[in-house]
Amino acid sequence: MKVLVAGGAGFIGSNLIDALLAEGHEVVCIDNYCIGTRANIAHLKGAPRFGLYEQDLTDLDALKRVFEREQFEFVFHMAANSDIQASAKNPLVEYKNTYTTTFNLLECMRLYSVKNLFFCSTSAVYGDAMGAQVDENYAPMRPISYYGACKLGCEGLISAFTYMNGLRTLIFRFPNVIGPRLTHGVIYDFVRKLRADPHHLEILGDGTQCKPYLHVYDLVECIMRFKNDLPQGITLYNVGDETATSVTRIAEIVVEKMGLSDVEFQYTGGRGGWKGDVPVFHYALDRIHAAGWRAGMSSDEAVAKTVEAVL
Amino acid sequence: MKVLVAGGAGFIGSNLIDALLAEGHEVVCIDNYCIGTRANIAHLKGAPRFGLYEQDLTDLDALKRVFEREQFEFVFHMAANSDIQASAKNPLVEYKNTYTTTFNLLECMRLYSVKNLFFCSTSAVYGDAMGAQVDENYAPMRPISYYGACKLGCEGLISAFTYMNGLRTLIFRFPNVIGPRLTHGVIYDFVRKLRADPHHLEILGDGTQCKPYLHVYDLVECIMRFKNDLPQGITLYNVGDETATSVTRIAEIVVEKMGLSDVEFQYTGGRGGWKGDVPVFHYALDRIHAAGWRAGMSSDEAVAKTVEAVL
Repeated sequence: MKVLVAGGAGFIGSNLIDALLAEGHEVVCIDNYCIGTRANIAHLKGAPRFGLYEQDLTDLDALKRVFEREQFEFVFHMAANSDIQASAKNPLVEYKNTYTTTFNLLECMRLYSVKNLFFCSTSAVYGDAMGAQVDENYAPMRPISYYGACKLGCEGLISAFTYMNGLRTLIFRFPNVIGPRLTHGVIYDFVRKLRADPHHLEILGDGTQCKPYLHVYDLVECIMRFKNDLPQGITLYNVGDETATSVTRIAEIVVEKMGLSDVEFQYTGGRGGWKGDVPVFHYALDRIHAAGWRAGMSSDEAVAKTVEAVL
Repeated sequence: MKVLVAGGAGFIGSNLIDALLAEGHEVVCIDNYCIGTRANIAHLKGAPRFGLYEQDLTDLDALKRVFEREQFEFVFHMAANSDIQASAKNPLVEYKNTYTTTFNLLECMRLYSVKNLFFCSTSAVYGDAMGAQVDENYAPMRPISYYGACKLGCEGLISAFTYMNGLRTLIFRFPNVIGPRLTHGVIYDFVRKLRADPHHLEILGDGTQCKPYLHVYDLVECIMRFKNDLPQGITLYNVGDETATSVTRIAEIVVEKMGLSDVEFQYTGGRGGWKGDVPVFHYALDRIHAAGWRAGMSSDEAVAKTVEAVL
């Protein structure tokens, strides 16, 4: 089928494109290279069944022209501001790159009768559950970052557009995703810091922040499996692995993989790494497990494999 | 204190301004007269302690200038597209008038350190609960109208802005609000139709759609009471009355108040009045009751009093 991958030059999007092309689909990528990079999709240049638009999804009129021309069957919406710390300083980034991009895609789907949607949501929509087990019906949803706030808003939009226009929609709420083509986040920061100074490592917070990390290969495999035969309405899953990795453990893995020793960890202290960060959460995965899917890699394995790819 | 009432020329906003002025506050109203009207605030012309800006809240730079100049202590955010049927045809109206207005107000509050917020939310954020009892933690929240979708998105934004900037926020989720200065909705439609033809009345749906109606005087009294001494964080209530009124009952009340008889009711049929409408819902009000507040008027009384005001 002919599909749009919005944000296809990004970390997750570009990995998804590889899988979609491998399965024989015709893939059109739209990206503004705001976070996504040309390097992520350089290997696709001239590939058959691959098309590319350098374009900002916040431009609704331009987006309409693409939809008019291309006649998509499926939209994979991977475009968002994924740098939560950046938008903490400037929430307008989330309003534009996370919420407005979603509104515009949904509006084009409505106008051009595209009926199938995959949306990347996030554990950040739940806010800080203070250690409670978070399943898909956890309430109240009180996001503490502008990122989580706008993703929750997107889910709201998707709910109404799905109902009003008879869409078949798949939403995954996933935690930190890591793997090849990762451009920011804790692993990337640690590698960069240790290259600059292999003897000391500054760690934000007290190092006990502990979250599940999901490898992008596992996530893409899950999207590819569940995208088929969607029922009308919304199908929503928490997606991740049951295990989690503390920030200190990540630091240890990075140090080990870089072949360093005697690195002094210097903690900035405090419960969370930065304002808007959710330091600890427990993800209920019963629904996706019941549907027959489990992550192939544990959180620690995903971290180790990612460090190898980043080095 | 000096307060901003955004959307102050609207139905609820203008009633709130009357109460705020009566309590001695200095009130600045911003409205673009998109749904609000000059008539709603005509009686305030030249009133002491009342200021007015004709301005669109979607213009962030213009809004910043107002915040810079006025130094508000409290923002009452009553601006939104309140005409759900209109936005069903054009979701962009909600994106602009409900979501973007909220983002811009929150961004100005962040930039100019305004710490107190009241936000009008709605039962529409819950979607169609299919008869289930809806309390504040009802899940999953699956709005079926673009209006409910954008209001849910606003709540998400408010959650993050409140956390990130230490706001004291009051959110009311209320059902249909009616009373003087009402400009659209079922009562208004019935009066208009019966004036055109006093013998027949077309009723959307099968007439059994049954919802709680809250009188604007009760709502304003509730806002005025709960706005004081807010704790940091979000305080959220369902607000309404426990009783509800069917569409057929509304028609009967309108017919009676207009002094008509032998009016033939013609039903268009179907469960809901229009796509995106939630035909029946049951509102749990335990939280606001426990806080010591109850509506002064039943749903039927609110309808009857409103019909009198509209005639």
